[in-house]
Amino acid sequence: MKIPRGLQRELKAIVGRDNLVIDRDLLALYGSDASTRNSAPDLAVIPANGDEAEQAVRIAVKNGVPVVPRGAGSGVCGGCVPIRGGMVVSLARMNRIIAIDPENHLARVSPGVINNELKLAAAEHGLFYPPDPASLKFCTLGGNVATGAGGPSAVKYGVTRDYVRALDCVLADGSRVGFGTACAKGVAGYDICRLLVGSEGTLALFTEITLALVPRPTAEAVFLLSTNSARGAADLVAPILRVTTPRALEFMDQTAVELVKDRLPLGLADQGAALLLIELDGDSETVAIQKRILNDFLRHRPEVKGLSEAATPEEAEELRAARRSLSAASFKLNPDKINEDVVVPRTKIPELVDFVHHTGRELAIPVFTFGHAGDGNLHVNIMIDKKNPRQREAGAEARKKLFRRVIAMGGTITGEHGVGLSKRKFLPEEIPPTGLGVMAGIKKAFDPGNLMNPGKIFPDSPPAV
Amino acid sequence: MKIPRGLQRELKAIVGRDNLVIDRDLLALYGSDASTRNSAPDLAVIPANGDEAEQAVRIAVKNGVPVVPRGAGSGVCGGCVPIRGGMVVSLARMNRIIAIDPENHLARVSPGVINNELKLAAAEHGLFYPPDPASLKFCTLGGNVATGAGGPSAVKYGVTRDYVRALDCVLADGSRVGFGTACAKGVAGYDICRLLVGSEGTLALFTEITLALVPRPTAEAVFLLSTNSARGAADLVAPILRVTTPRALEFMDQTAVELVKDRLPLGLADQGAALLLIELDGDSETVAIQKRILNDFLRHRPEVKGLSEAATPEEAEELRAARRSLSAASFKLNPDKINEDVVVPRTKIPELVDFVHHTGRELAIPVFTFGHAGDGNLHVNIMIDKKNPRQREAGAEARKKLFRRVIAMGGTITGEHGVGLSKRKFLPEEIPPTGLGVMAGIKKAFDPGNLMNPGKIFPDSPPAV
Repeated sequence: MKIPRGLQRELKAIVGRDNLVIDRDLLALYGSDASTRNSAPDLAVIPANGDEAEQAVRIAVKNGVPVVPRGAGSGVCGGCVPIRGGMVVSLARMNRIIAIDPENHLARVSPGVINNELKLAAAEHGLFYPPDPASLKFCTLGGNVATGAGGPSAVKYGVTRDYVRALDCVLADGSRVGFGTACAKGVAGYDICRLLVGSEGTLALFTEITLALVPRPTAEAVFLLSTNSARGAADLVAPILRVTTPRALEFMDQTAVELVKDRLPLGLADQGAALLLIELDGDSETVAIQKRILNDFLRHRPEVKGLSEAATPEEAEELRAARRSLSAASFKLNPDKINEDVVVPRTKIPELVDFVHHTGRELAIPVFTFGHAGDGNLHVNIMIDKKNPRQREAGAEARKKLFRRVIAMGGTITGEHGVGLSKRKFLPEEIPPTGLGVMAGIKKAFDPGNLMNPGKIFPDSPPAV
Repeated sequence: MKIPRGLQRELKAIVGRDNLVIDRDLLALYGSDASTRNSAPDLAVIPANGDEAEQAVRIAVKNGVPVVPRGAGSGVCGGCVPIRGGMVVSLARMNRIIAIDPENHLARVSPGVINNELKLAAAEHGLFYPPDPASLKFCTLGGNVATGAGGPSAVKYGVTRDYVRALDCVLADGSRVGFGTACAKGVAGYDICRLLVGSEGTLALFTEITLALVPRPTAEAVFLLSTNSARGAADLVAPILRVTTPRALEFMDQTAVELVKDRLPLGLADQGAALLLIELDGDSETVAIQKRILNDFLRHRPEVKGLSEAATPEEAEELRAARRSLSAASFKLNPDKINEDVVVPRTKIPELVDFVHHTGRELAIPVFTFGHAGDGNLHVNIMIDKKNPRQREAGAEARKKLFRRVIAMGGTITGEHGVGLSKRKFLPEEIPPTGLGVMAGIKKAFDPGNLMNPGKIFPDSPPAV
């Protein structure tokens, strides 16, 4: 779009020359995320604080320029890709942990703080910030809130939503307002704070986030369990959750195991095994109790082929790192990936795993799955070579079949990645017209000009109300 | 308001003659709740199921008749009082636990199910539904969701909001739609489900609720701790939460103790003591560990005057029942009560307790406090005789001072009761005009005719957008 010269001048006066990006080569860097989408904005600003962000947004929307908030660009659904151009607001400089309140178990942070930095800062006070997306070492808390990010620890500790107490934000008319309360409880007026969680930048830009923390577990135990078949591992998920609540209960099918085999203990990862990674945490005494309960249970299960416990914290971290490296390792199979974070009721994990493998065989492309089995949230990886038309078509077909099956199973097409660009055309399969109409009405109430991250979530945008 | 005769006929055809209430004496019963407000509706329907509720709402709104959902009428803020007349929809017959899914830790219930009935049904499957408002033996889950109800166990287990997975509801245009997912995770589209939690019947009428359950704790330990001063007890709250996370951490000031003294162990409740009721739960081994940690900690605190542990489950229940009976016992002090459920960051509990007592002395009326200290959520009881003009005025003044102080402390005017009628004029003190404007915009998007429980939450209604 055509950006008026006066607007550039005004923005420069707010953020300073160095924090206004107008160079085309540089702007390309603000046009992508971890999906394959790419669309450069017309300009980008990097405000130093909430006041600058507020002023920049106000000027942009007054001029009818779309506003697209951007954290680390680590999203996988194109959520921060500015497909309609306009102004990207990078939160890269708003990366300060403003305060940790150890007595009230709270953190106040700017939206550009990296997830793991809050974890480290909380740990210094004996506290813990649980949400742990695989990108935790580079993704931002603002992006986590915008997508409603989850991670392996959700099975015990919940997702980002469960930790957001209050949000300060800039609305589509450029006004600044806070929602929620730092207190442990609060029901004064509508829960706008939780409505904003997962709204993917389409309703507001966050300028400050208040997050709850929990006491830090001081002990852990990490197990790797192998089975002869993916079905065997999947069948163990619901029964394990009957006897204990692990911090993580991660599944890898045989293909996933094969991909990261070099990083896993020999013997366990051999010969076509599927795996469960089981993590327990708490204080040392309660972890000992949980270990005993888990061992007693697993001893009697015929599915269990091998069981190994990480002997040291370093070994435990290696196992977790191997699990996290799966995403990158998947490209050994094919150069392009369709990665979907579908969710089903956890008792349906075995059925989903069977279906995924059947679909890969049927369409003759590599399809494998791993993920947060304890939550019923699996990452299904459909590996294709985009340059091969047959594979491209088979990939699209596999994806469609997957979503349809998951919805038929009472599941959802996205557990933690969000809708963004890549799932918006499938949203109407999950959410009926009446529900989409309510969402469109909310979008319109917040952003009548459709300037906040336009073109996301809704299948047609601006959405029909 | 004038109800067209044709409307009555249509409603009778839907719910049957026996479930349409038009008799004036009977309608008076649908006009009150546990507040002192009373305003009879023009008619009431008692639908048998979601289909009947949907049809009844559709006909009412088509005729411009306000719709006011009603659970047990146990709210204390006038939330279900039909101040603009219209049609009450009683959920009394929609009281079925539709299904408990023990493998996925889920319950599907109709909105009229009583909180404690779900607790009992879940227990049969080794599961637990934690939210525990004091009215748990008669309040309904629909009302709990509508108000965002909490209770003592929130300090460990969270509030109603944390358990609502999905809601089926009827909207203001009479359409029926579901929001949320039964799965453990889900971020497809805006989180309308959580927006509806705490919306007090102003956005939609619930026809079915899907709730998460957790594994049932199999052991508990209940302690009563006495201190010489209210301040002494309040000072212990934050430090206790540093060493353990109890299931409940309830506070009673000296007046509260005096009121229920007959039901508490001798010695502890004597001589001007303030109390903390501390409950631990888990399996027997972890409870034993927590007990040891708690005892080790309390041994070194000078505030502790006495400490007694309930020897049997019956004794534990007696202590909890004594705590729950406080609300009724308060009328020994004066015939009328102003009961506010304010919240502050928990480290400010001592300051709040001091302020509450100071205010009572200053205004020469009985003011006492007890409640969920672990959450920073105190029930402040301002006892007056309404027939006494000085006391009435002092009560109003105490209330105003309380809210102002709480907001200045970074707190909120309602932690779990809701706004309803009785707090709506104070909402603008906590929520700025921009925030109220966003809420009004949402109300208008859902309910342009302002027919869903009109006159609630917003200080002026229909709210200006």
